[in-house]
Amino acid sequence: MTRAFNFSAGPAALPDAVLERARDEILDYQGSGMSVMEMSHRSAEFIDIATRAEADLRELLGVSDDYHVLFLQGGATTQFSAIPLNLTAAGDTVDYVNTGSWSVKAIKEARKYCEVNVVASSEKSNFDRIPDPGEWHLSPDAKYLHICSNETIGGVQFAEAPSSSVPVVADMSSEILSRPIDVNTYGLIYAGAQKNIGPAGLTVVIVRKDLCGSARPETPSMLDYAVQADADSMSNTPPTYTWYLAGLVFEWLKEQGGLSGIQAINERKAGRLYGAIENSNFYHSPVEAGVRSTMNVPFTLPDPAMDADFLAGAEERGLKNLKGHRSVGGMRASIYNAVSEEAVEALTDYMLEFERERG
Amino acid sequence: MTRAFNFSAGPAALPDAVLERARDEILDYQGSGMSVMEMSHRSAEFIDIATRAEADLRELLGVSDDYHVLFLQGGATTQFSAIPLNLTAAGDTVDYVNTGSWSVKAIKEARKYCEVNVVASSEKSNFDRIPDPGEWHLSPDAKYLHICSNETIGGVQFAEAPSSSVPVVADMSSEILSRPIDVNTYGLIYAGAQKNIGPAGLTVVIVRKDLCGSARPETPSMLDYAVQADADSMSNTPPTYTWYLAGLVFEWLKEQGGLSGIQAINERKAGRLYGAIENSNFYHSPVEAGVRSTMNVPFTLPDPAMDADFLAGAEERGLKNLKGHRSVGGMRASIYNAVSEEAVEALTDYMLEFERERG
Repeated sequence: MTRAFNFSAGPAALPDAVLERARDEILDYQGSGMSVMEMSHRSAEFIDIATRAEADLRELLGVSDDYHVLFLQGGATTQFSAIPLNLTAAGDTVDYVNTGSWSVKAIKEARKYCEVNVVASSEKSNFDRIPDPGEWHLSPDAKYLHICSNETIGGVQFAEAPSSSVPVVADMSSEILSRPIDVNTYGLIYAGAQKNIGPAGLTVVIVRKDLCGSARPETPSMLDYAVQADADSMSNTPPTYTWYLAGLVFEWLKEQGGLSGIQAINERKAGRLYGAIENSNFYHSPVEAGVRSTMNVPFTLPDPAMDADFLAGAEERGLKNLKGHRSVGGMRASIYNAVSEEAVEALTDYMLEFERERG
Repeated sequence: MTRAFNFSAGPAALPDAVLERARDEILDYQGSGMSVMEMSHRSAEFIDIATRAEADLRELLGVSDDYHVLFLQGGATTQFSAIPLNLTAAGDTVDYVNTGSWSVKAIKEARKYCEVNVVASSEKSNFDRIPDPGEWHLSPDAKYLHICSNETIGGVQFAEAPSSSVPVVADMSSEILSRPIDVNTYGLIYAGAQKNIGPAGLTVVIVRKDLCGSARPETPSMLDYAVQADADSMSNTPPTYTWYLAGLVFEWLKEQGGLSGIQAINERKAGRLYGAIENSNFYHSPVEAGVRSTMNVPFTLPDPAMDADFLAGAEERGLKNLKGHRSVGGMRASIYNAVSEEAVEALTDYMLEFERERG
């Protein structure tokens, strides 16, 4: 068995150590004679797994008791509806910054429920920057300000939460747990699991407690934060096995030195890859310097006609899932937490080799 | 490693063969160098997994092209909202039969959206029967008739779909795939995966195509059947690993002779267990003969004071998760597809032994 160097944008690479432990426990979790998949979510064993995962996530991110941490289903896209359903009433206005494909989707869904004011957009320049906050047209009465803190497709990333007089709501799907953040600068943080948390099928929502409890009457109960918080995210059967795997990822992250430990690794990885792009006249980053994502790195070759050869050579070297999104073209390397420094080095070595041959 | 005899009501036992295969492939799916958890849902490998799972499920249940088969998230409880949101407009009336705890929950949620007419209820007799269809008070103008075809807690099961002039909607979470059914007698069938399909975190919806496309404007896109059908259940990232495991369960079911094969096994299991109850003056079934579930078998001991001893002795013998739901008391053995005949035999042997000692 050879493990690939997997640069998938999501579902994405998981740490070998997590998969190995899952493998070893899959038929018999710690002498129970059962897989975690086969346990009641009300069992003492699973409650222990769930509680530890939440505690580890709170510790990693520094989440205070002012926030609920929910383990839900449906992905970030379900939150595109759940957020306005929970945080607004009919006729309310909400502010959204449009920095990429995921912002566009969040805005479209919010328009079903609210007056959506797009405070700024980088769509005209194909989402290659983050509009200067000094030029945002904020509403006087918005219920919240929404950002996608890291755009998986475009590869732009906010350095921190924008300062705001209303709660900041952030889709952190593709950057959560990659670096320390100040949770207290957000009203609500949400993330699909399938990049830095675990397998697809789990969504983490971290929400300030005072923002819960006023969901619209038409909100499906399963999407009501207050209902889920009251039930410790077990209003019905949660995705138990995915929750367990997320817990293993959190344990692994703690072994990496927590978020400051993984941040140092991630900065070395991103530094090496952006360096390889910058130090060549062959590769090009479409993203403005200063807002380049440490997680999703799009880059282009001098001629799209070379793309197929580049990808074929990469595949031969076990470098997988490098094809860029069609809206950007070229390549995209997603270098999430579980993508090793060795994998990034193999990629930059190959990039140099390809440039020497074809440059 | 000793595998327990696991009678959990859900999440529930999975076939050893499925877990063994998952174990063997968890770090490297068929030479890809990746776990299925780490693959893009748009990759050729995963599309193949997803397509085969749907085809196998259609084959097992005999689902015609008149129906969409959707692989969703959120559990049956999310469908309690999605069904009225998709199938009704404001002010519409819907008919529900109340045969147990899950019916009660479905009714409560539907009341957010519709006029709910409870056509009949067995609540007064603690859900020990299915009210005679001849006495149901059907609405003249219901949009659909909802049943929970097998009540996991009470242990009552419909023999077949009630005849109806409006679409029959059935929560089959705890009996789907346990026997052949005539899908064409239903408008919509839904089921959480965590009993007979796979791990928790996946929900199967089988819906007649002509019932899709008229969701209310406030329906979250992720809950809109037409949106999900257009996207082959990949409107966003689906729970890929759970979908893969469900596919392994479908393959295993085909090896058991499909649904008629598993039905024969299930009938032997239920026959043995109900026989042990009926042939004793010690154990008692709270459910009326004729509607007893082949999947969930509640039974009581002569004195609740004996329950703790019974459970302790069971645990010693590797017979797990037999404690009954608090609303019924006593014991409950859930004998889903993956619970072996050997497991049921071990249970009935123990029941006899306990009766001899304490009866």
